Amino acid sequence: MEPLILKIIILMAGVLALGFVGYLVATILRESEGTEKMKEISLAIRQGAMAFLRREFITLAAFTVVVFIVLAIFIEPKPLVAIAYVCGTSTSALAGWLGMNIATKANARTANATIGSWAKGLKIAFSSGAVMGFCVVGLGLLGLSIIAFIWEDSHVWLGFAFGASSVALFLRVGGGIYTKSADVGADLVGKVEKGIPEDDARNPAVIADNVGDNVGDVAGMGSDLYESYVSAIAASMVLGVVVLGSVKGMFLPLLLSAVGIVVSIIGALSVRPKEVEANFEKQVAKAHAAMNTGVYVSNILMIIASFFIIRSFVGGLGLFWALISGLLAGFLIGQATEYFTSAEHAPTKKIARAAQNGAAVTIIEGMATGMMSTVIPVLLVAIATVLAYIFGGLLGIAIAAMGMLVNLGMLLAMDCYGPIADNSAGIAQMAGLGKEVRERCEALDAVGNTTAALGKGFAIASAALASLAWLATYFAVAKIDVASLTNVGVIAGVLIGGGLTFVFSALAMRGVGDGSFAIVNEVRRQFREIKGLMEGTAKPDYVSCVDIATKKALKAMVLPGILVLLVPLALGFTLGPEAVAGLLVGALVTGFILAVMMANAGGAWDNAKKYIEAGNLGGKGSDTHKAAVIGDTVGDPFKDTAGPSLNILIKLVGKVAVIFGPVFIMLVPL
Amino acid sequence: MEPLILKIIILMAGVLALGFVGYLVATILRESEGTEKMKEISLAIRQGAMAFLRREFITLAAFTVVVFIVLAIFIEPKPLVAIAYVCGTSTSALAGWLGMNIATKANARTANATIGSWAKGLKIAFSSGAVMGFCVVGLGLLGLSIIAFIWEDSHVWLGFAFGASSVALFLRVGGGIYTKSADVGADLVGKVEKGIPEDDARNPAVIADNVGDNVGDVAGMGSDLYESYVSAIAASMVLGVVVLGSVKGMFLPLLLSAVGIVVSIIGALSVRPKEVEANFEKQVAKAHAAMNTGVYVSNILMIIASFFIIRSFVGGLGLFWALISGLLAGFLIGQATEYFTSAEHAPTKKIARAAQNGAAVTIIEGMATGMMSTVIPVLLVAIATVLAYIFGGLLGIAIAAMGMLVNLGMLLAMDCYGPIADNSAGIAQMAGLGKEVRERCEALDAVGNTTAALGKGFAIASAALASLAWLATYFAVAKIDVASLTNVGVIAGVLIGGGLTFVFSALAMRGVGDGSFAIVNEVRRQFREIKGLMEGTAKPDYVSCVDIATKKALKAMVLPGILVLLVPLALGFTLGPEAVAGLLVGALVTGFILAVMMANAGGAWDNAKKYIEAGNLGGKGSDTHKAAVIGDTVGDPFKDTAGPSLNILIKLVGKVAVIFGPVFIMLVPL
Repeated sequence: MEPLILKIIILMAGVLALGFVGYLVATILRESEGTEKMKEISLAIRQGAMAFLRREFITLAAFTVVVFIVLAIFIEPKPLVAIAYVCGTSTSALAGWLGMNIATKANARTANATIGSWAKGLKIAFSSGAVMGFCVVGLGLLGLSIIAFIWEDSHVWLGFAFGASSVALFLRVGGGIYTKSADVGADLVGKVEKGIPEDDARNPAVIADNVGDNVGDVAGMGSDLYESYVSAIAASMVLGVVVLGSVKGMFLPLLLSAVGIVVSIIGALSVRPKEVEANFEKQVAKAHAAMNTGVYVSNILMIIASFFIIRSFVGGLGLFWALISGLLAGFLIGQATEYFTSAEHAPTKKIARAAQNGAAVTIIEGMATGMMSTVIPVLLVAIATVLAYIFGGLLGIAIAAMGMLVNLGMLLAMDCYGPIADNSAGIAQMAGLGKEVRERCEALDAVGNTTAALGKGFAIASAALASLAWLATYFAVAKIDVASLTNVGVIAGVLIGGGLTFVFSALAMRGVGDGSFAIVNEVRRQFREIKGLMEGTAKPDYVSCVDIATKKALKAMVLPGILVLLVPLALGFTLGPEAVAGLLVGALVTGFILAVMMANAGGAWDNAKKYIEAGNLGGKGSDTHKAAVIGDTVGDPFKDTAGPSLNILIKLVGKVAVIFGPVFIMLVPL
Repeated sequence: MEPLILKIIILMAGVLALGFVGYLVATILRESEGTEKMKEISLAIRQGAMAFLRREFITLAAFTVVVFIVLAIFIEPKPLVAIAYVCGTSTSALAGWLGMNIATKANARTANATIGSWAKGLKIAFSSGAVMGFCVVGLGLLGLSIIAFIWEDSHVWLGFAFGASSVALFLRVGGGIYTKSADVGADLVGKVEKGIPEDDARNPAVIADNVGDNVGDVAGMGSDLYESYVSAIAASMVLGVVVLGSVKGMFLPLLLSAVGIVVSIIGALSVRPKEVEANFEKQVAKAHAAMNTGVYVSNILMIIASFFIIRSFVGGLGLFWALISGLLAGFLIGQATEYFTSAEHAPTKKIARAAQNGAAVTIIEGMATGMMSTVIPVLLVAIATVLAYIFGGLLGIAIAAMGMLVNLGMLLAMDCYGPIADNSAGIAQMAGLGKEVRERCEALDAVGNTTAALGKGFAIASAALASLAWLATYFAVAKIDVASLTNVGVIAGVLIGGGLTFVFSALAMRGVGDGSFAIVNEVRRQFREIKGLMEGTAKPDYVSCVDIATKKALKAMVLPGILVLLVPLALGFTLGPEAVAGLLVGALVTGFILAVMMANAGGAWDNAKKYIEAGNLGGKGSDTHKAAVIGDTVGDPFKDTAGPSLNILIKLVGKVAVIFGPVFIMLVPL
């Protein structure tokens, strides 16, 4: 095909995604937000979320300017890499802003629609998740392809991907610290000290907590996967140019992504939940079935389409099999995640039973489960990597990462559905909707817990493959043929990479500790100083809690952010470029496995608690339940802060290495 | 010097160590065991410990026979490697048996001596620790040098070191599972359900618990460091022969070890605690000072001696600096361990304060502390490795490991002092000795907690350096010049090595869960079925608890044992020898860092609890204390089971690779 036609097709796909977003937004906004009370709560959440974003974006802008200057001065081609970097930053930020804006408009609408029809509530929440999903793929593909069509220089493309990483650092790491500071802070005073229920409007931190769901699981998750998505495509393009030549190499990944958008839209449109009678379990099962249909449809269509595209572009089918390896690995890791974290299976039930012997045994059992659960993802990623390499060399690895991410529009819609359903259940509680509506919203929320757990497993696995793709790109860019373990600099790099992972996790968890401590003090202060708050006659100051949690989150990000930027540079300038390869591998192996462990342990503790709350082993309020609550509280920063932050770490060190790789090689290694 | 004279000097040093052991045993046995009650308790502990060892050794013997046959059939030179393997197994087992025998004879004697003189009690406990220490270095050096003098073939030497690993697997991993099963089981029924104090003679699991201290911290620690010690020497010899030629290469490491024994004896003899008035803090400070004198004396003498030996053997001083790098890294890691785990410093105090907000926050803070504490050991090992390599190439790395371990006699004496002091405090409690004596014993125990924590940090660091030495040896033996991270098999190996670490830890922790569950049931059964047990009129069946914990520990070892043997082989035969190098590095980086995290988190939780028990933040019985107890209980299997087991894992995969390396290279890699 003519390059011009290809360009048009690719750009059209990006536009199509954004058009689909417009259609979804229109259908969502058509719905009513319900009562005044509901509108008011939803507005408070939206204002809080936007206040968080505003403050994050101001700091991000300053950060971007600094990095822009550094890139413009040091990195060739000047200043194109720096310009592409800013484009990557702004498109990712825009996607986060749009997705979160709609998510916070959809929460009350979901709750309100549920009054009439459970299926309609599901549809709205899913559509709102799809807004985030298709903003990510649409803006990602459009941004990257426009950059690529203007400057056919792979270094510039990498700049765009680097920009996406900066946003992910702020929204995923900062958002993760924010969300758990607010959550733990709200619970410690509200539930424990004051004895008021979850999501009670009298709690000054309740809005901050609901904002946190959007911040962490919509904007954070979106920016994380935006980064993985752009990474996989950009790495495939860079390696594709080396292997397939400049035309085919650049167009193949972009065209696959364009087709991925089309099949994802078809998949999303196939999600058509049918109304069922008021039965929690049946509703949950139906919702899962409806979403799974979307996943299957888009996967099957993608497999067929990529077969023909790759055969006509490359001739052979090696890269097709590489793509399938990644796609299958992603799917199977999801299944494994479900096995280890769902209350329907043995591991989580075992944690619930362990809670009968107290909190310590609960923690030990959960840790053991989390550790054990790493084996399947590790093996699947290792096997997918080896197969992808056999089928397509280093390019095959990047294509495998694309295989996992090519249907991201559909998959992210499912992931981001969760926090919106969660918010709607919160609004139903705060606005005092009837028991039946609350139960329906809780059924939506229960579905969201599973899709969120799957999403976490998927985000980690795709981060692992994306960072393997960066490793491959680093070898190409820094012109490294050999980085041998017989080289002591490489070994030192691996060790330091491993240490970096643990320090990064520790800092993220410390951030939650400090942040929640500040929230606790603020909530106590409001209960003490605002007369009539406990009686419900006065209103709490929601904004100050949002503000405090945001400030604390930004402060807690400084050190991990600096470390992840400076350690690769310091190592590259002292021990040389091979040591940096060691660093990437050390960070990858420890970060990937630790992230899986933390996500799955956290998910399993959460569901073990819910299993007990559903009336098993003594039910709510029993000693067993109390032990399970402790497990869940430990799991929160694991699965929502430290674990997801590691996704960012392993990708970001790779990008720092790739961007600065050409500089290292000008210096003589030790 | 003439080889014959060197041989005599080396053998004499080994004999001297054993002679010193004989002298120590004589001084210990000269003391009285105290009252009938004390004799009885001590006898019960000794019988339990010996019952544990008997059962472990029977299974070990069967295991040894199987491995012997495999080695005799497959590994050249046949059957010499197999014979050396059996020699390594039996000398390590003998060291464990001797050390534990004397430790269980010294506990009552320590308690009894303390009645008259606090300093005398300290001296006896330290002497008994020194029995373990000098059994290890004496038998290790004698065994290895006799093998080396008979067969000057480096493959045979490796067989001896491989034998030491098998024993460590049984005593350290099995012992670790045993000790925490008994401990947790005893506490859950005794303290929690029945409300009787720690170390109460009515608790059927109390002897099993006291046996556990010896099993885990004397025999387990001893066999772990026996393995590291022999590993460092053997790896230095193998690489030494390659670099320095067969005569110098073989003799230099052995001669350094011989001198290490002599200076360690001088160091141990310099430990002369002075009597102080009955003041807990002063006693603890004096005890630390006395032991530190021994460490400083032996370190300084060793530095001087090795300077002259290396200069006269090699000419240059490169290897001397490599040795110093390892020695210094070991010393500094000890200091960092103390900072992160001692209640005198900020991190542990912060955990204690976190306990004011409940168990969940205690766990999160402890995990963050453990993760943060990895950074210094990681950097020190990385720096020591790079420096050692700069000064002496791959041989330098092995010599650095020797630098850390060459004074092992003195260092292990200090480590093994801890459990004996712990046991003596238990006996003082069970035998109802006066308050003053109990307090003196508790001062001895407090010192032991610190030396034990230092010992754990040291054991991990030396395991890391020893396994780096094995990696270097693997490259030499399997004739690998390059194992590049650009090779996807190497990457898959690194990932699988990381997964192996996490699964291994999970299995060890699960073993504790299952074992303690069985003990809980047995203790409950005895309280139910034995009339008059609670009233103190009937005696519990101590033996059955020991027996159950031993059986459970052996059963729990099967799967991790098989994994660590089979995974390197499976990888080598499918993805080739380079992938195995990746496996070793993946297991090393994750295992080392995870072990440090677990040991330090566990130590910090333990000391945070003790800090509160000393009357801070509400003291014993407060809610803060309860939260700290939960932290401590989570930390127990971290620091005493899973963490130390990883030392064995990272060394053992290296040895399996080295032994079977020559077989891999005959096969065509993928």
